[in-house]
Amino acid sequence: MTTIIDELFEVLQSRRSADASESYVASLHAAGLNKILEKVGEEATETILAAKDCNDDPARNAVVKETADLWFHTLVMLDHLALTPDHVLAELQNRFGISGLEEKQSRSNKE
Amino acid sequence: MTTIIDELFEVLQSRRSADASESYVASLHAAGLNKILEKVGEEATETILAAKDCNDDPARNAVVKETADLWFHTLVMLDHLALTPDHVLAELQNRFGISGLEEKQSRSNKE
Amino acid sequence: MTTIIDELFEVLQSRRSADASESYVASLHAAGLNKILEKVGEEATETILAAKDCNDDPARNAVVKETADLWFHTLVMLDHLALTPDHVLAELQNRFGISGLEEKQSRSNKE
Amino acid sequence: MTTIIDELFEVLQSRRSADASESYVASLHAAGLNKILEKVGEEATETILAAKDCNDDPARNAVVKETADLWFHTLVMLDHLALTPDHVLAELQNRFGISGLEEKQSRSNKE
Repeated sequence: MTTIIDELFEVLQSRRSADASESYVASLHAAGLNKILEKVGEEATETILAAKDCNDDPARNAVVKETADLWFHTLVMLDHLALTPDHVLAELQNRFGISGLEEKQSRSNKE
Repeated sequence: MTTIIDELFEVLQSRRSADASESYVASLHAAGLNKILEKVGEEATETILAAKDCNDDPARNAVVKETADLWFHTLVMLDHLALTPDHVLAELQNRFGISGLEEKQSRSNKE
Repeated sequence: MTTIIDELFEVLQSRRSADASESYVASLHAAGLNKILEKVGEEATETILAAKDCNDDPARNAVVKETADLWFHTLVMLDHLALTPDHVLAELQNRFGISGLEEKQSRSNKE
Repeated sequence: MTTIIDELFEVLQSRRSADASESYVASLHAAGLNKILEKVGEEATETILAAKDCNDDPARNAVVKETADLWFHTLVMLDHLALTPDHVLAELQNRFGISGLEEKQSRSNKE
């Protein structure tokens, strides 16, 4: 059984080879890695701003939309680099087979 | 059937109420929204840097790890704001029920 | 004697009240704080990307332009919040009246 | 006559060759470009968060401190890449010898 992330990634992969004037995904790949990473950075900032406003406001829809944009652009980035969400999900799965304090220690060499 | 994202989110939710000295997730919630959003911003930057180096280097493992960190911290953020990954996945699913050009137009009011 | 930063900030302040259709600065203030902060985030990402490419390439002009964009948008942000670059420069001056190790310690409570 | 930015940059340049265990600046250069750029990204995020809180709060000191951190780390970055703040200030000076609408048009090819 495929999940939403898998299905979405298949759609994104199929659009990579579309005409860049007709597909936003194809236009990102055509523009190249820097353009894709600029979008990852932009959407992270917009997620942060929406989350700050969400704290003040019961309307949470903007956080959902910006997080969707952020995940979407990271999926395009993964595809551009010949990686897949399965690599990322396997990393998360491995990391969370271990408990609380160990989890933190396993991260500490990079922080 | 639950997916990896669902299982992971259940783990993250269960750790929210753990002792902050024993769980990194609990310590993030205890530190508050700004701390969580600082981590989202940091991990976005680290993902971007890893992706730039990945372009020059066949070793792609750092991009996978940084993207995992970025997704992980957005999941903690969603939980902190009483949102779930299902909200984000439903948004992505709705958006990709529509084709290429329309997808771009539906995004254009925010970009 | 005024410096380039002072002169620039006076120009930015004078443009704040211009017609938003004729001045980029006025259009940023009219769009509001979130728009200004989105630009700070964007220009930080573009500075980072240019710096990574600069490392591989003798042409450094893009880093200069992106850093100029980043400083410019932080100046607009300061003005939007009724702050001035003198506040920031005084903070830097105070911080660097102290030497190496102390400097680090004075920063350590926020990092 | 030298300005605060010039004096600060001279201090930063002199510390570059200090012992990394005694100078934060030297430790950044020793850690390398990625570490410096991670800090630029972090400080941009912290500036954005402080500015959002500033909007809700009369205490503006945090925005000043975070902007100082952001400018400081961009100065270290410039030095690391054998650039100087004079390059950035000359770029800003050139850009603002031109008026409102033209300014916007001169930026439009990169946005």
